[in-house]
Amino acid sequence: MSKRVLVIGAVALGPKAACRFKRLEPESSVTMIDEADLISYGGCGIPYYISGDVSDARELQSTTFHMIRDPEFFREAKGVDVLTRTRALKIERSSRKVLVKNMISREEYHIEYDKLVLATGSRPRRISLPGEELGNVFTVSGLEEAIRIRDELNKGSVSRAVVIGAGFIGLEMAEGLTDLWGIETTVIEIAPQIMPGFVSSVMARTARRIMEKNGIKFLTGEKVLGIAGQNRVSKVRTDKREIETDLVIMAVGVQPNSELAREAGLKVSETGAVMVDKYLRTSDPDIYSGGDCVEIENLVTGKPGFFPLGSLANRQGRVIGTNLAGGMDTFPGSVGSFVVKVFDHGVAGTGLSLESARKNGFDAMNTFVVQHDKSHFYPEKDLIIMELVFENKTGRVLGLQGISTNGDSLKGRIDSLATMLPRKPTTKELSNLELAYSPPFSSAMDALNNLGNIAENILSGRNQGIGPEEFARLWEDRHNQDVVFLDCRDAENVADLLEKYPDKWQNIANESLEANLRKVPKAETIVLVCNTGGRSYEAQLKLRRHGLENTLNTYGGMRLLKKWGLDI
Amino acid sequence: MSKRVLVIGAVALGPKAACRFKRLEPESSVTMIDEADLISYGGCGIPYYISGDVSDARELQSTTFHMIRDPEFFREAKGVDVLTRTRALKIERSSRKVLVKNMISREEYHIEYDKLVLATGSRPRRISLPGEELGNVFTVSGLEEAIRIRDELNKGSVSRAVVIGAGFIGLEMAEGLTDLWGIETTVIEIAPQIMPGFVSSVMARTARRIMEKNGIKFLTGEKVLGIAGQNRVSKVRTDKREIETDLVIMAVGVQPNSELAREAGLKVSETGAVMVDKYLRTSDPDIYSGGDCVEIENLVTGKPGFFPLGSLANRQGRVIGTNLAGGMDTFPGSVGSFVVKVFDHGVAGTGLSLESARKNGFDAMNTFVVQHDKSHFYPEKDLIIMELVFENKTGRVLGLQGISTNGDSLKGRIDSLATMLPRKPTTKELSNLELAYSPPFSSAMDALNNLGNIAENILSGRNQGIGPEEFARLWEDRHNQDVVFLDCRDAENVADLLEKYPDKWQNIANESLEANLRKVPKAETIVLVCNTGGRSYEAQLKLRRHGLENTLNTYGGMRLLKKWGLDI
Repeated sequence: MSKRVLVIGAVALGPKAACRFKRLEPESSVTMIDEADLISYGGCGIPYYISGDVSDARELQSTTFHMIRDPEFFREAKGVDVLTRTRALKIERSSRKVLVKNMISREEYHIEYDKLVLATGSRPRRISLPGEELGNVFTVSGLEEAIRIRDELNKGSVSRAVVIGAGFIGLEMAEGLTDLWGIETTVIEIAPQIMPGFVSSVMARTARRIMEKNGIKFLTGEKVLGIAGQNRVSKVRTDKREIETDLVIMAVGVQPNSELAREAGLKVSETGAVMVDKYLRTSDPDIYSGGDCVEIENLVTGKPGFFPLGSLANRQGRVIGTNLAGGMDTFPGSVGSFVVKVFDHGVAGTGLSLESARKNGFDAMNTFVVQHDKSHFYPEKDLIIMELVFENKTGRVLGLQGISTNGDSLKGRIDSLATMLPRKPTTKELSNLELAYSPPFSSAMDALNNLGNIAENILSGRNQGIGPEEFARLWEDRHNQDVVFLDCRDAENVADLLEKYPDKWQNIANESLEANLRKVPKAETIVLVCNTGGRSYEAQLKLRRHGLENTLNTYGGMRLLKKWGLDI
Repeated sequence: MSKRVLVIGAVALGPKAACRFKRLEPESSVTMIDEADLISYGGCGIPYYISGDVSDARELQSTTFHMIRDPEFFREAKGVDVLTRTRALKIERSSRKVLVKNMISREEYHIEYDKLVLATGSRPRRISLPGEELGNVFTVSGLEEAIRIRDELNKGSVSRAVVIGAGFIGLEMAEGLTDLWGIETTVIEIAPQIMPGFVSSVMARTARRIMEKNGIKFLTGEKVLGIAGQNRVSKVRTDKREIETDLVIMAVGVQPNSELAREAGLKVSETGAVMVDKYLRTSDPDIYSGGDCVEIENLVTGKPGFFPLGSLANRQGRVIGTNLAGGMDTFPGSVGSFVVKVFDHGVAGTGLSLESARKNGFDAMNTFVVQHDKSHFYPEKDLIIMELVFENKTGRVLGLQGISTNGDSLKGRIDSLATMLPRKPTTKELSNLELAYSPPFSSAMDALNNLGNIAENILSGRNQGIGPEEFARLWEDRHNQDVVFLDCRDAENVADLLEKYPDKWQNIANESLEANLRKVPKAETIVLVCNTGGRSYEAQLKLRRHGLENTLNTYGGMRLLKKWGLDI
């Protein structure tokens, strides 16, 4: 019972669905169309092509065995017919036809289908800036646009660049421009922080400092009003200043390409994404969709979510391929995991950030851990900073974000939680999470276990503390408040601070605290601090036992404060 | 309502339980006793102290902030009284007393308790070899013994060593002796492979080759009969040969120290481990136990399991600490995750190996994936080899083991599955597993997703194949069988093999297979092979479509065959 399958879109999900289906039903025919000339490329690799890490655009189009995935490859190797430079104009559902247009000959004609796959993806969001049509103003919208950017860089005429938008793609592009090309790059973001919505302001600032140390300038909380120049861009104008530049990259997010679906009467959400069920069927059971043009369930909030990510598109493509062949595979949704390279660091996360958790109505709390990824006695190790977001009272884990010089180590912890996240784990489960252990790879009590322990102690009211932002506010306001900072580390770590701030910074090592209770400063608030927040937590318990309830522990300790950038 | 808690054993679980309890109930008193002088050390770090990676034994005893965890530290910092060189002789449950002996003064006396914690750990298994009392014959039984080994190495008189047992500790010790000390090291293992019970023979051989390349000699399937020498060891005698050596390390496994518990009438399993419930209570509700002396549920088999691992001991210690203070925390069991450094590689796993799955009555199957940990177009990347063990028909995932030059990347994948394993995931869930993605950290279709896909194709009967051992058997027997090896890679990868084996090795690239059907060799069995098993799978589907059912795909392809050591 052979059928005709038509796939609109040939970047990530389209090819996966087409090839999987063809493998399952070789007697059926599959046609895949795409408006562009270049197809089936790793779109997430574009920033690394721009940076020069990937030397040739064809590498993004290659199989692991170095064949270019062009129409000929799909025909010969996969038995899939591909029509490039072919635009889908209209889906005629009643007659199961799609009106298409050959963009070279301008000819219009119909392609019939039994099953249709909408793999139309997303496009860069436009903010309709005056001057955005000028030369050297780019978006990151596909491999062909990427080649134009790289060609421009190759000419050697770009010494300054502005990236508009500090989401993942904006940051990756900024790093690409700065790191290998040495271009003076400024990132402008309308939100008050980078990676808004994905990480907390604490993590954002910590990551931003890494990028700043590597030469990138940031202007956050700043709105771009227009782009100016003669033919080519020469200036970007914001609500606060003008910036001279030779190149602009607009990376202010993406929006689903759902016009075809909407015009065909398929259900499209208010946010403009094609709606699908767990089998990735649209409201027409003969039409499947997935990837950047659909919304799927956010498995943490239970609400529809938009996750434009190449990995999800690939996996969804396989599910669609199976279901086109009569299968009933499901794609239940996403917890929103991400990882991004920030120079020599990795930044990764899963689930909700503190802000998004609160926006979604959760009574959310957070805490931090700063710990090595290996046993502390093992010579080679990297620091991992992680922030846990959890629900007050229930202890439900809502999200986890982190930064480390060992992105692989960090990602391992993030992924381990991500696989649990759909079934609503608690901080207690995190405490007991089984992570493979030996000293060259982890601690007996892994950072992730400790994060669970800390959260549990917070929930039980034993560990009462503050993050770096509250610490900094108290520190800056210290002369107006009856506050003392009690350092629980050994004297040799504290000498310079004691000398610099004799009235506000004091020292009793946690281990000798009970023998020195009379030396504990009298103040309305005592902020306890150590290197990581562990010894100061013990100090808090001891002081509470002796009737002192006016202490605040510093989550993540001095290590986090330093990485976050407290100037002390 | 203060109570008296007594903890017997002060290495990993004991201190954790004692300190956690003391933090929760500072008004109660805690006494911890240990037979040894040195306490609270990272026992899993011993091989790295032997190797010299950890320069000073005190580092294994130190906190992250460089304080030595000695009795004084526990008293001052933690409020826990510690008695070292103190042996527990007898638990008198009816009167809630423990008879102890001061090993220096030889004095015997009683310590009373309200709650007791048995943290007696394990000791090296003895095989009662003639000559094991000779000088320079060691076990890995604690920090004091480790210091004796290291002192011996420091003298410079050890140029040859024999390690008996190729479990994790044996391998770690062998690497430590070889890598930095340059000692000619031979590992003798009675089982036919290294790491028996933990990885399949395929993974074992692949790991063994890495160690052999680094100078370690292995004698597997060989039984040690005795140790000879005058005062000091000079020879090890096996059932096959004599080996001259200056040092012997016996690492043939550990056994729980459960004598105290047994004599006190507590429930002890047939295998000699203390039996506990999920709250880590023994059969006496006033006595808790955990760590290396207990058995807990194997969360894959549902049967009792013995998991002597420092990480589990630490986490269990915290649970016991909580429960001593009236909490009801649970420790449900373990899926048996492990990771071990093998020179520049990591070897890790979780759940059951193929052999242990079959021993446990599962109708188990396996397959392999060989893939880079990052996107194939990203310049820096490492190969990951993984073996998935899954149940026939149901597709339930039973275990995963792997080897990679990036142990952190590998461990991340292992841990991600480990967190799912207790709830009996299927290969389909593995296909859709959400792993954070960007090209510098992973592939859009991660190796773990692909492993799920391959398993699913095997279960559905589409991917019919063999692993390296079956391949090698067919290859070695090729002249007696009607078998042809059809290489599905491009001609340039195959030229040398075609020349060397013109009658048995043939080549049609998968991509041109359907145009070259008449060239497909006629044979009773056609073994399809490519670089990783992916193109040869596609070739298998194509040939089946054209009526050829006599093909076998090679899981993991040439890459795995080479790492496994096929001499071709």
